[in-house]
Amino acid sequence: MTRDDRNRKGIGKMTKTAAIIGGGVIGGGWAARFLLNGWNVCIFDPAPDAGQKIAAIIENARHALPMLYDVMLPAQGQLTFCDTIAQAVSDADWVQESVSERLDLKHQVLGEILQHSAGSALIGSSTSGFKPSQLQQGLSDPGRIFVAHPFNPVYLLPVVEIVASSLSAPEVVIAAKAVLEDIGMRPLVVRKEIDAHIADRLLEAVWREALWLVKDDIATTEEIDDVIRYGFGIRWAQMGLFETYRVAGGDAGMKHFISQFGPCLKWPWTKLMDVPELTNELIDKIASQSDDQSGHLTIRQLERLRDDNLVAIMRALKGQDSAVGAHLNNHEAQRPVTADGPGPITTIERTIPVDWADYNGHMNESRYGQVFSDAADAVMAAIGADRAYVDGGLSYFTVDIRIRFLAETHAGQKIIVRSRIKEGRGKKMQLFHEMVQPDGTLLATGEQVLIHVDLGTRRACDPVPHVLAKLKDLANAHAAFALPSESGGS
Amino acid sequence: MTRDDRNRKGIGKMTKTAAIIGGGVIGGGWAARFLLNGWNVCIFDPAPDAGQKIAAIIENARHALPMLYDVMLPAQGQLTFCDTIAQAVSDADWVQESVSERLDLKHQVLGEILQHSAGSALIGSSTSGFKPSQLQQGLSDPGRIFVAHPFNPVYLLPVVEIVASSLSAPEVVIAAKAVLEDIGMRPLVVRKEIDAHIADRLLEAVWREALWLVKDDIATTEEIDDVIRYGFGIRWAQMGLFETYRVAGGDAGMKHFISQFGPCLKWPWTKLMDVPELTNELIDKIASQSDDQSGHLTIRQLERLRDDNLVAIMRALKGQDSAVGAHLNNHEAQRPVTADGPGPITTIERTIPVDWADYNGHMNESRYGQVFSDAADAVMAAIGADRAYVDGGLSYFTVDIRIRFLAETHAGQKIIVRSRIKEGRGKKMQLFHEMVQPDGTLLATGEQVLIHVDLGTRRACDPVPHVLAKLKDLANAHAAFALPSESGGS
Repeated sequence: MTRDDRNRKGIGKMTKTAAIIGGGVIGGGWAARFLLNGWNVCIFDPAPDAGQKIAAIIENARHALPMLYDVMLPAQGQLTFCDTIAQAVSDADWVQESVSERLDLKHQVLGEILQHSAGSALIGSSTSGFKPSQLQQGLSDPGRIFVAHPFNPVYLLPVVEIVASSLSAPEVVIAAKAVLEDIGMRPLVVRKEIDAHIADRLLEAVWREALWLVKDDIATTEEIDDVIRYGFGIRWAQMGLFETYRVAGGDAGMKHFISQFGPCLKWPWTKLMDVPELTNELIDKIASQSDDQSGHLTIRQLERLRDDNLVAIMRALKGQDSAVGAHLNNHEAQRPVTADGPGPITTIERTIPVDWADYNGHMNESRYGQVFSDAADAVMAAIGADRAYVDGGLSYFTVDIRIRFLAETHAGQKIIVRSRIKEGRGKKMQLFHEMVQPDGTLLATGEQVLIHVDLGTRRACDPVPHVLAKLKDLANAHAAFALPSESGGS
Repeated sequence: MTRDDRNRKGIGKMTKTAAIIGGGVIGGGWAARFLLNGWNVCIFDPAPDAGQKIAAIIENARHALPMLYDVMLPAQGQLTFCDTIAQAVSDADWVQESVSERLDLKHQVLGEILQHSAGSALIGSSTSGFKPSQLQQGLSDPGRIFVAHPFNPVYLLPVVEIVASSLSAPEVVIAAKAVLEDIGMRPLVVRKEIDAHIADRLLEAVWREALWLVKDDIATTEEIDDVIRYGFGIRWAQMGLFETYRVAGGDAGMKHFISQFGPCLKWPWTKLMDVPELTNELIDKIASQSDDQSGHLTIRQLERLRDDNLVAIMRALKGQDSAVGAHLNNHEAQRPVTADGPGPITTIERTIPVDWADYNGHMNESRYGQVFSDAADAVMAAIGADRAYVDGGLSYFTVDIRIRFLAETHAGQKIIVRSRIKEGRGKKMQLFHEMVQPDGTLLATGEQVLIHVDLGTRRACDPVPHVLAKLKDLANAHAAFALPSESGGS
């Protein structure tokens, strides 16, 4: 039984429900992340175009989020639009408030949420500026409210700042962290509440300085973006600020490096002691420079570009098992694929990511080989030659592979691979893989010869007895199932 | 004749020379970038350990920079250590000053450079803080001096801020841009000189805010790094600041989005109106938090981690042809591989990048398929079925590939592929590829069957006559060369 089956049948854990109050870019992003991680979602947003906006965000998320993973996400939950806050929160395990940044409005909405939700429901606020103690003022059960501040696009970026006040119940923070980790996020508990938490203080500092640079005609919006994305932005994507300086400081050490900064803190390298006036003139200047920069692209096109770039960057770091990539690998490890019945093994169920496609969106031919290589890893795991076995010094090496390309496939499509052991004795294992679409259309076949090796000597040798026994069992079981004609003369 | 041969023989253009004055992290990074882009480099740095430090930086660059490209870089230039500034700059086409940030020292060094270099030599300063007019004060020929401020690691990050003063000669800036583009950089000419140019003003703003966050115990160095690298740092790596906000603003437009920021510029979201005192206590706090974060790794390990991550991110964006990846693709397009003599075609000459390797550094088996797929593209280009031909609606599709894996290869190794046309008539093209190390060791063979198709109908059809003629010519030429035994029964 696959994970999808388990979810559909409600086995394991009951499907949980998130209530999303306020469906803008942030609320919609929360909705998409919960939905695609298998939660049911109830949305309340009185704006007439809320449904349309949220549908667009969910469409973006469906394009991008499954591409981040090399396994299937759970079956998507159910999406419901509700007419009242009371209705939306009544069955919710998690309530996320993402209304406009007006404290009076937030008080009113949070009051309604407290009144109509279960006492066990976790209540997070997406506020980027307010402290939790400000949100809690005058509410009946303030300890249940905390800040859970995410980053746009919420369905892709994992970090979320959790901020509690002295009134917050510690067990609420622990429970909130567990939920956020389940939906693939990276909760960061802020040690003390301050206005704008951590990230938005850094962003506000850059923003103020950038406004001066544009106002004073030192640089255009595009030039400022370029100096970031061709320079320190790429560094920050993987190490952040302090670690980057630690490395730059070299062997003299962090302390020596930091001390050097002393004098320039006194230099007039910043205008931040002063705050720029956001006049209509400055607003027009920024807007018109931004139009020059990318007015030829619609916001939807820019969103797709951003999301494809983010997926490619995050997947690149996944390959290095570093920074956000290590985080994704950990989340993925919690979603193992289980081997199934006596027939061919379902070795791969996944979505084709953008970084596997050419500029027309077709999957590159070499990625067929990657899929079959991954399928062979899954067969190895099924016979007990798993990661621990390889770490122990024994493995299988592919010596020959033949791939027949039968149909094209595209980025965003789901594929399934079924693998059979055609021959399994002694050092040799011969596999036959079929790659199909969910509707059964055959995309490609792969015939693969692998030899068992000792990784120390790099020479062929027999597998250990329990692996050999399992290999023979599966080969016998698979012999009962006829190969399709595409197998050909091997 | 390959580009390497041309360079070795001094055909095309004469090898140029860069003089690097001051060999720290920045000077060493400049040296590495010039060297690996085929320039000769003369270094002056009186520090006793300068040679050792620069050797370490060049080793890092040799590991990382060739991995960014899918073609070979030119043959490396010659590296010479000089005893005096006069000696270092005498033959230089470009002189880069990267000494400590002391204005008196810079004046003295720049004076010597002007005295001993050719009048045509371009003289850039790596200063992160000083304005060009400050550097030029009191010098004999100030118009030749400009700021060329790069980012660490200089051999990987392309952006460089060029800043001129009213005394600078406009043709000097134009010539400087051309040189920087030739060595793969992305020059950004700053419109007006200000202290710290553009990027360091933004970085200084973040730095001041981050110091407050650590000092006030809101977050540790690691938590601040995490909020960046799991959040906005990933966004900035591909779009920067303003473009990110443009997208977040959605259909309401940039102007509406910016206007919303008005009120919060008045809010106390930043402590930047005040400058933190960098006391010994605060320095110790930062250094000890940074040790907790990554004291278990040496600086060399961290450098390798950073560089591998940067290579993987930049290559991911290369696949999307976006941001820094589009920049790399443009630079690479200036380095075409030329087809050679009558024998097998040298279709691939490249370095195995880190994102093609498993956690043990071995090239993943699927990448052998990618190399052969790229080799087939090169064969197509050789018979006139190039990118323009494909854009015109005709192409070849691979229908069958057989790969024999003969030896392992590793990230950082160079590989060469020689391809023959075994059969070429009508719709069908059959290729035989050999992948070898530079010493001739055979790593793998690939036999590939391709069918010519009409991309509109997705059906097989004959190539156009000039492609068909070239295909037959090459097939006949290649028939004279015996296939190695690994070809086997096809």
